[in-house]
Amino acid sequence: MAKSITTRVENYSQWYNDIVKKADLAENSSVRGCMVIKPYGYAIWEKMQSALDKMFKDTGHVNAYFPLFIPKSFFSKEASHVEGFAKECAVITHYRLKNDPNGGVIVDPEAKLEEELIVRPTSETIIWDSYKNWIQSYRDLPLLINQWANVVRWEMRTRLFLRTAEFLWQEGHTAHSTRQEAIEEAERMLNVYTDFAENFMAVPVIKGVKSPNERFAGAEETYCIEALMQDGKALQAGTSHFLGQNFAKAFDVKFLNKENQLEYVWASSWGVSTRLIGALIMTHSDDNGLVLPPKLAPIQVVIVPIYKEEEQLKMITEKIQPLIGKLKARNISVKYDDDDSKRSGWKFNEYEMKGVPVRLVIGPRDLENNQVEVVRRDTLQKMNLSFDTLDLEVEKLLDEIQQNLFERSLQFRKENIRKADSWDEFINILDNKGGFVLAHWDGTAETEQLIKENSKATIRCIPIDNQHEDGKCILTGKPSIQRVLFARAY
Amino acid sequence: MAKSITTRVENYSQWYNDIVKKADLAENSSVRGCMVIKPYGYAIWEKMQSALDKMFKDTGHVNAYFPLFIPKSFFSKEASHVEGFAKECAVITHYRLKNDPNGGVIVDPEAKLEEELIVRPTSETIIWDSYKNWIQSYRDLPLLINQWANVVRWEMRTRLFLRTAEFLWQEGHTAHSTRQEAIEEAERMLNVYTDFAENFMAVPVIKGVKSPNERFAGAEETYCIEALMQDGKALQAGTSHFLGQNFAKAFDVKFLNKENQLEYVWASSWGVSTRLIGALIMTHSDDNGLVLPPKLAPIQVVIVPIYKEEEQLKMITEKIQPLIGKLKARNISVKYDDDDSKRSGWKFNEYEMKGVPVRLVIGPRDLENNQVEVVRRDTLQKMNLSFDTLDLEVEKLLDEIQQNLFERSLQFRKENIRKADSWDEFINILDNKGGFVLAHWDGTAETEQLIKENSKATIRCIPIDNQHEDGKCILTGKPSIQRVLFARAY
Repeated sequence: MAKSITTRVENYSQWYNDIVKKADLAENSSVRGCMVIKPYGYAIWEKMQSALDKMFKDTGHVNAYFPLFIPKSFFSKEASHVEGFAKECAVITHYRLKNDPNGGVIVDPEAKLEEELIVRPTSETIIWDSYKNWIQSYRDLPLLINQWANVVRWEMRTRLFLRTAEFLWQEGHTAHSTRQEAIEEAERMLNVYTDFAENFMAVPVIKGVKSPNERFAGAEETYCIEALMQDGKALQAGTSHFLGQNFAKAFDVKFLNKENQLEYVWASSWGVSTRLIGALIMTHSDDNGLVLPPKLAPIQVVIVPIYKEEEQLKMITEKIQPLIGKLKARNISVKYDDDDSKRSGWKFNEYEMKGVPVRLVIGPRDLENNQVEVVRRDTLQKMNLSFDTLDLEVEKLLDEIQQNLFERSLQFRKENIRKADSWDEFINILDNKGGFVLAHWDGTAETEQLIKENSKATIRCIPIDNQHEDGKCILTGKPSIQRVLFARAY
Repeated sequence: MAKSITTRVENYSQWYNDIVKKADLAENSSVRGCMVIKPYGYAIWEKMQSALDKMFKDTGHVNAYFPLFIPKSFFSKEASHVEGFAKECAVITHYRLKNDPNGGVIVDPEAKLEEELIVRPTSETIIWDSYKNWIQSYRDLPLLINQWANVVRWEMRTRLFLRTAEFLWQEGHTAHSTRQEAIEEAERMLNVYTDFAENFMAVPVIKGVKSPNERFAGAEETYCIEALMQDGKALQAGTSHFLGQNFAKAFDVKFLNKENQLEYVWASSWGVSTRLIGALIMTHSDDNGLVLPPKLAPIQVVIVPIYKEEEQLKMITEKIQPLIGKLKARNISVKYDDDDSKRSGWKFNEYEMKGVPVRLVIGPRDLENNQVEVVRRDTLQKMNLSFDTLDLEVEKLLDEIQQNLFERSLQFRKENIRKADSWDEFINILDNKGGFVLAHWDGTAETEQLIKENSKATIRCIPIDNQHEDGKCILTGKPSIQRVLFARAY
């Protein structure tokens, strides 16, 4: 029986859940809010990790690992950080269980921790507590460190990949001797994220800075990349923060500068998470299932033989083996599915559901004609290609699919950025069309909050290199110097 | 000032701590028992991960990710497992903090979990809870899944890498349709670990099975590899377990076999951890610091220029650049340290401390003679080599060092396996020489326990393919059919 899923038009949210489930990416676990990332979903994450890790190392960063637990008191050291993170979190109070006389195990009341530990929701505090011992002079700077880790935020409403209590991510934490250098680092990493989103994920993003209300708790400036999903909602795909000297002050991290004076260290932090898999799904996929950009596809090419007799399969396999070698030599990951227990129709459906970019189908008649049927997943277009130059053609096709997915998403985004010059127009666009809305805002946190409450849209960012333009705030009518980017968001 | 460390003879334990600290591998954090793995230490772990991950994938395994938290009740489902793991663990009881009227934050008593969550000490329970939904028929088997993750065991006495509350590891969890297949899997992975230990870590290991007392909590058979440290103590470097149907029964995981009958699934699990870094240090290092096998060294070759004038450095650099290119083309990781702020003597000391396998030193006179001074870390032997074939010679030398470290350790182990035929002899060897002791044991758990209490030595393993030989138990004098491997251990 073919797998089929809810269509986007019917119910976008259900469509998303269906893809996550039927493409075998992830599932909910028995632990509230915590997901199991299944092998196929994890293989996508591994591809993402590998590309990002290389980019981090190419820009001079090294990896390290810091503790999962953070003493409760650390959170109180940075005033805005505690408000943002310490509230909804997993708290460890005991370190032992004991046998329950009535069966099972119970918490041993004798084993209460003197100070509770928090499972890290983000690691600025525990890392700056270490940096304190690592930094004495400007010669110890910059520190350019990244960590791949799991973090926990006690979310009440969770969605697979998009919002889960535990998720996987990387968090960069850098220390610098000047304000300027820390800002440049935050901007450099925003560009790395943009490069990754656009050139690996094929997801076009808008770079910007967050408004004060949306800033990371503890940052002086939060940079972000914002993507647009097919349902017209925005998704924050990555952030990087200029932290000023906030954490250096909270953890008393000073260095002797070149003038031999003690100064607080400057900081940045930046992260992307398994949430990106949610963005990937919602940007490219269709009503047949997942669509993956070739650069992040665990299987880039699947080959399905069509045969009736064992002898035919043997001939196809003989013909196919050298091709597989050639494809692998081009660093193309290929799966030859000659599993006899599945029908070819089932296989076509399965690999479409899983978003394999290119499918090659070969039967006895193709053998005679020295050709193969090639189906590309992005357009579902079929073509016959000669066997002789197939490895080269497939490589080109993968590049073309990668490019097409990006262009298609970029086109969609272009069609879904609109200007609104009044409150009615603003609400009308949000309710009927969705997408990004460029509108004037008077620049105050109060108005930002009111707009959010009344429209459910937030300022996604103030785009980098935004054009200044005089106008009036859509809510208050007060003067504004620029349009900012609004949207309803994940 | 040159870094220097406590010698092994003076104080082996302090020597170990000094190396971990001065080679910049790891340090204790502010959280009791949790370490910070510093960039250089983490780079070694990344090398280990990369080699192991490839070996796992080459043997048909895929990666996935399961939740950090495990509901308390899950531990009670497998009787021996709860005894082994649920006792000393991190227990989450609350999910929110709130502002303390007296300043800081306190646990919100309103936010108490209905059922406490345990931070995973190992993942059999949460994984088999998922497998229950993944397995219906023999066609769904085998499941060959690995996870790279952090785990927490509330250890009271911790040592960096060797025993920490939180550590990093991989845990494989496989499901099979027959007993035989699960046993073969456990044995296959023991061989993979052996291959990794001997051919990457250059650490010779003895393969064996654990005695019942030392078995993994929940296993029917535990296989292990045991290594010998330079102080004569043993270290368990990896384990793989045949779990029988224990977890399938605990989580009610049945499959329809080919005969269309419902049957419990068979299981294996296997893991190695950051503890391996401790084993690596204690096997090869010397009183000058860390010694790393080339295959796991983050920097394989360091090049130090010797010069007085800027012009000389320029000439050396010009000469060196093509060599660096050639070394990289051979996949050799190389660092050219032309940092002007450090003296060359300091550099020699530093890279010796960090265990860089090969050091190349080049000064103006070497330039004239078209040669380079080459120093190998394992023997500290110096030689002059011609510049022309240096890349090839360095590659050969790295292989030779890898081989030499293994041979040297193997020789040490050979010299430190002794037979004991009486209790006095047994204690005498343990107290005066250490190392492995092959001795007869009557095969009972009671005697095993008594030997442990009276000698502090444990049965490390019953070696695979052990020769049967009639004898008398060293403690009880009762008949025994084979010698088993004893040692005091980490």
